[in-house]
Amino acid sequence: MSTVKLAIPFYSTYGTNQTMAEIAAEAARAAGAEVRLLRIAETAPEAVVNSQDGWKAQVARAAAHPVATPADMEWANAYLFSAPTRFGGAPSQLRAFIDTLGGQWFTGALANKAVSAMTSAQNVHGGQEATILGLYTTFLHWGSVIVAPGFTDPAVFAAGGNPYGYSHTQGAAFDDAAKAAIGHQATRLVTMAAKLAA
Amino acid sequence: MSTVKLAIPFYSTYGTNQTMAEIAAEAARAAGAEVRLLRIAETAPEAVVNSQDGWKAQVARAAAHPVATPADMEWANAYLFSAPTRFGGAPSQLRAFIDTLGGQWFTGALANKAVSAMTSAQNVHGGQEATILGLYTTFLHWGSVIVAPGFTDPAVFAAGGNPYGYSHTQGAAFDDAAKAAIGHQATRLVTMAAKLAA
Amino acid sequence: MSTVKLAIPFYSTYGTNQTMAEIAAEAARAAGAEVRLLRIAETAPEAVVNSQDGWKAQVARAAAHPVATPADMEWANAYLFSAPTRFGGAPSQLRAFIDTLGGQWFTGALANKAVSAMTSAQNVHGGQEATILGLYTTFLHWGSVIVAPGFTDPAVFAAGGNPYGYSHTQGAAFDDAAKAAIGHQATRLVTMAAKLAA
Amino acid sequence: MSTVKLAIPFYSTYGTNQTMAEIAAEAARAAGAEVRLLRIAETAPEAVVNSQDGWKAQVARAAAHPVATPADMEWANAYLFSAPTRFGGAPSQLRAFIDTLGGQWFTGALANKAVSAMTSAQNVHGGQEATILGLYTTFLHWGSVIVAPGFTDPAVFAAGGNPYGYSHTQGAAFDDAAKAAIGHQATRLVTMAAKLAA
Repeated sequence: MSTVKLAIPFYSTYGTNQTMAEIAAEAARAAGAEVRLLRIAETAPEAVVNSQDGWKAQVARAAAHPVATPADMEWANAYLFSAPTRFGGAPSQLRAFIDTLGGQWFTGALANKAVSAMTSAQNVHGGQEATILGLYTTFLHWGSVIVAPGFTDPAVFAAGGNPYGYSHTQGAAFDDAAKAAIGHQATRLVTMAAKLAA
Repeated sequence: MSTVKLAIPFYSTYGTNQTMAEIAAEAARAAGAEVRLLRIAETAPEAVVNSQDGWKAQVARAAAHPVATPADMEWANAYLFSAPTRFGGAPSQLRAFIDTLGGQWFTGALANKAVSAMTSAQNVHGGQEATILGLYTTFLHWGSVIVAPGFTDPAVFAAGGNPYGYSHTQGAAFDDAAKAAIGHQATRLVTMAAKLAA
Repeated sequence: MSTVKLAIPFYSTYGTNQTMAEIAAEAARAAGAEVRLLRIAETAPEAVVNSQDGWKAQVARAAAHPVATPADMEWANAYLFSAPTRFGGAPSQLRAFIDTLGGQWFTGALANKAVSAMTSAQNVHGGQEATILGLYTTFLHWGSVIVAPGFTDPAVFAAGGNPYGYSHTQGAAFDDAAKAAIGHQATRLVTMAAKLAA
Repeated sequence: MSTVKLAIPFYSTYGTNQTMAEIAAEAARAAGAEVRLLRIAETAPEAVVNSQDGWKAQVARAAAHPVATPADMEWANAYLFSAPTRFGGAPSQLRAFIDTLGGQWFTGALANKAVSAMTSAQNVHGGQEATILGLYTTFLHWGSVIVAPGFTDPAVFAAGGNPYGYSHTQGAAFDDAAKAAIGHQATRLVTMAAKLAA
C-alpha cells in the first residue's frame, strides 16, 4: 500500500532526459511509489521542431507519455523533474509549465511535497549545477521540501559526484553507474516522501 | 557619436517592467546610447491572456514597441533586461526568447557585451535577488560582461539596496528614488559598455 | 516525548541574529523539540572585536550560550542556522565552523536531517536571498533535507515575503509580524523533522 | 606600458589552486599586466594544519608569495581569485579575507574593477559552478564587473566546459588543455580590464 504518489515531469529535446526519467520511474516503482511519468508540453513552433530530425523524432517518442498538467501536480505528493540545461537554466518549455501553476501555488496545493531534480548538458560543467539549483529556488517558493542526493551513497561519487542531482553529459552511455545514481536519487526521494506523507 | 548600442528587452504582464524599461531607455539615451526598447513576445495562449483584463491591456500597451529578435541581440553591444520574477526565476516568455539564441551564441555573436538586469515581485523578498542572479548565470554562458549596480551610488541604497539590479515591488509608485536607481543602473551600463566597445 | 533534536547555531555581530535564534528556539520548544541554542565561535582577532563597542558587547552577550561543536551537529536531527549576510554570503565565522565538519560529512553524520536558515542585512535587498540560498547549496552537499518556509503561512507575507527563510532588516523592531514569521519557520521545521525522524 | 594591475589572491590547501594562480599569473604577465600573486592568510589553527602533512607542506610552499591585504585590493584594478570549493562555497579562509574588506567597500575602493574566479573540487560536479557563482554574487556587491570566460574560446570546451571559470578536478594533471583554459581566462580578464581602465 503506497503512500507516495510521484510525478516525474520531464522535458527532453533529443531523448536524454526522457531516458533519465524512465530509469527513475522504474526505481521509484520498485521502491513502492505510484508513478506518473509525464512529458512537459513542447512550446517551440512546430516548424522549428520539424526542422531538426532528432527533435522531431523525440517529440514522437515522448508522445508515449501523457502531458504534465496542474492536476498531476495536485495529485502527487512528490516530484522528480528532469530537464536539460539551457544556458545554466531550465528550458523555457519547463518554465512555461511552471508558470501555469500560479493557481495551485496560491491555494497551497504544491506545498509540503518532497522534490528533486536531474539535468543534462553538453559539457561536464555546462551549467548542470546552476540549472538544478535554479529549479530548487523555484520549488522553495512552493513550500517544497528539497531532497537532493547529496553524497549519501557511493553511487553519487561513481557517477561524477553532483550532490544537487544527477547530471548526464549528453551522448554518454547510460551505464550501470548512471543507472545506480539515478536509482539512488529516486529511491531516496520516495523514502523521504513516504515519511513526510505518513 | 555613440559607440553604445543598447538593447532593452522587457517582458511585462501588467506594465511594471515596461515602465522600468522606459525609464531606463530615457536615461541611457541621455547618456549617449542608441537604444532599442524591445518587448519580449508573449507566448501564453491568447485565451489565457484575454481572460485577464490587466494582462490583455498590457499586451496592447506593449505593442507600441517592436518585438525583440535575435538580430537585435547581434546589433547591440549592451543589453539591459527587465522582467518580473516567477517563483524566483525569469518568466517563461523571456526564457523562450533566450532559448532561441543558440545560433547567435554558437557563432559568438552574443559575446563580450556589457549586460545588466532588473526585476519586480509582489513582495519585498519575493525572489528578486534570485531572478536577477539566475539571469546573470545565463549571461555568463554567452561570454557577457556583467555590469550590476552594486552599491556604486547612493541611489541604490535609497531604492531598497539591491546590488544585483533594480527591484520594484509591484504596485509601488515610480517615485524619484526608483527613477534615480534605474537611471544609475542604465547610465553605469552605458559607461562601461562604451569603454568595452572603444 | 520529543523525537526532534534541533541545533540552532547562530552568528551575530551586533545581536540581531542572536535575537532571531532565541525567538526560533522558543517556538521550536513550544512545538515539542529539544533545542540547543549555540553560538558560532568568533574568529575575528580579539583586537578587532574590541575596537568596536557594539561587537564587543555582543561577544559578551553571546557567551550565555555554548559554542557550537561538530558533536552538536551529530547529536541533532534538525538544524536552523541564523547569520547575517556578508556581501551576499554567510560570514566567515560560520563558514569556518562549516569547514570543520568534513569528518562528520565523510561518515554521513550530517545526512538526512531537516535544515533551514535565516539571515539579516542592512538593506531590504542586501543579499538576504543569496545568503540563504548559498547556505542551502552547502547543506545539499551534506544530504540535508531543505525545509524553507515558502509561502506556507500568511506570516511569511506579513514579514516581507522571503520564501527562502526569514530575513531581518537590521535595526527594525522584532514586532509580532517578525516573531510570527520566525515562529512559523521554526515550527514547520520541527514538524517536518519529526516526520523524517519517525 | 601596462594599465592593468591584477591581483591574484589564491587559497590552496594542498597546492592545486596555487598552481592555477601561478599559471594565470604567467599568462596575465604575458598579456601585459602587472601582477601581484597573493596568498590568502591561513586561518585554521596551526595544530590542525600541522596534523596533515600535505596541508603543512602547502603552507610552506605558499609562503613564497606575500599575504593578500586590503591595500592590494585598492592597488589593483582587476582581480582573479582562485580557491577550492568547500561544500559548494568558498573556503572560510577566503571569506575571512573578504570580510575584512568592509572599509574598502564602503569608500568605493573595490568598485568598477574587472573580476574573475577559478576553483577546484574532488569530483567533476562537486560544487565548482556553485562556488564560482557564489563568489560572483559577492563581487556584485562591490560593484565589480564580472568577466567570466563563457564559451569565448575552444579552450573552455577542451578543459571541461565551465563557462563561469576554470575548474580543476583535484589530482588531475595540469596538461596543455588546463593551461590553455586558465590562460584564456586570465588573458581575457586582462583585455577587458585594460578597456575598463582606459
